[in-house]
Amino acid sequence: MRDLIEIQARCSDAISLAAGRSISIVNTHGGQVVDMWAFRADDPNEHMSMPHSMVALDRIKPAIGSVLVSNLRNPMLSLVADTSPGVHCMLFAACDSARYRSLGCTEPHANCADNLRRVVAALKVPLPYIPTPLNLDEHGVMRIDPPEAQPGASVTFRAEHDCIVALSACPQDLVPVNGHGCTPKPVAYFINES
Amino acid sequence: MRDLIEIQARCSDAISLAAGRSISIVNTHGGQVVDMWAFRADDPNEHMSMPHSMVALDRIKPAIGSVLVSNLRNPMLSLVADTSPGVHCMLFAACDSARYRSLGCTEPHANCADNLRRVVAALKVPLPYIPTPLNLDEHGVMRIDPPEAQPGASVTFRAEHDCIVALSACPQDLVPVNGHGCTPKPVAYFINES
Repeated sequence: MRDLIEIQARCSDAISLAAGRSISIVNTHGGQVVDMWAFRADDPNEHMSMPHSMVALDRIKPAIGSVLVSNLRNPMLSLVADTSPGVHCMLFAACDSARYRSLGCTEPHANCADNLRRVVAALKVPLPYIPTPLNLDEHGVMRIDPPEAQPGASVTFRAEHDCIVALSACPQDLVPVNGHGCTPKPVAYFINES
Repeated sequence: MRDLIEIQARCSDAISLAAGRSISIVNTHGGQVVDMWAFRADDPNEHMSMPHSMVALDRIKPAIGSVLVSNLRNPMLSLVADTSPGVHCMLFAACDSARYRSLGCTEPHANCADNLRRVVAALKVPLPYIPTPLNLDEHGVMRIDPPEAQPGASVTFRAEHDCIVALSACPQDLVPVNGHGCTPKPVAYFINES
């Protein structure tokens, strides 16, 4: 029986995923962006890299079968199933405190960069910089496909190495990156059997 | 009288550029990709960042007037003139030794990442990672515009801070990123008067 684990709105989690296992990220309410990263468990200096993956794929959005590679161009995660509209952005930096300041925030604001820092600190993942995440269910600049994952839509990735996967339910509530009238929502994930 | 400085084929250079000054990069022979980076002179941990610039611009190619921002979302360089077809790629990681290995190279191969490391080492620019460059005159994955800068075409950027600008004439000769039958060519640059 699979274990469905919730990530609360504006929050994040880090998950160990052995090579060959797969993780499904569930857009519980639909319309919620999830920032996703992956680091090699045996050397977290190596991480899934969007600029390297775009060269390898010659695409700016992953499709079923796409193998996302690391900053050393090794396979990290493969996209194996997707019941969302498939609108995932490989381009955009994670939201961070500077982003919210530029949007007029004068108070601290939850953000995906800090969400990543928080959940990987205990796992000894070094973060001299924040890698560009795979922004699940985010348009980015290409507004061609339908706008939102439907409630319950999921995206499934298989680990090509032992990985630490980090997920952040994007706290953006100032611009309409997330659906639901800019209200961040919880998401969930599960590790697939076998 | 402006000073035209050549960068030999497969080679690189780093240039100090004071705020308000502008640099023009000349595609001497046309069809040659130039990888471009910029670091703040007073704190080279802050650098021009493509994933942050794409959020700021909501574009995947810069246009005249585009302000490219840093990893802290501060203005770094503005694109002020462009006599090329304007095909510049903000997406792709710089070529590196792993890229050439993946293309079948068994011997070391000149690459833009090493070219950057070499020219900024003396300037005390820390490089815990290679920022994604602005790939001047590279298609990337969007093959809409005419393919090549013509001989003598130039792209001009104004510094919004005191910067160290690094340029690498891409040594790629295995896949047709550069024109001229995969033969890397020299390029040149000059600092504009006043």
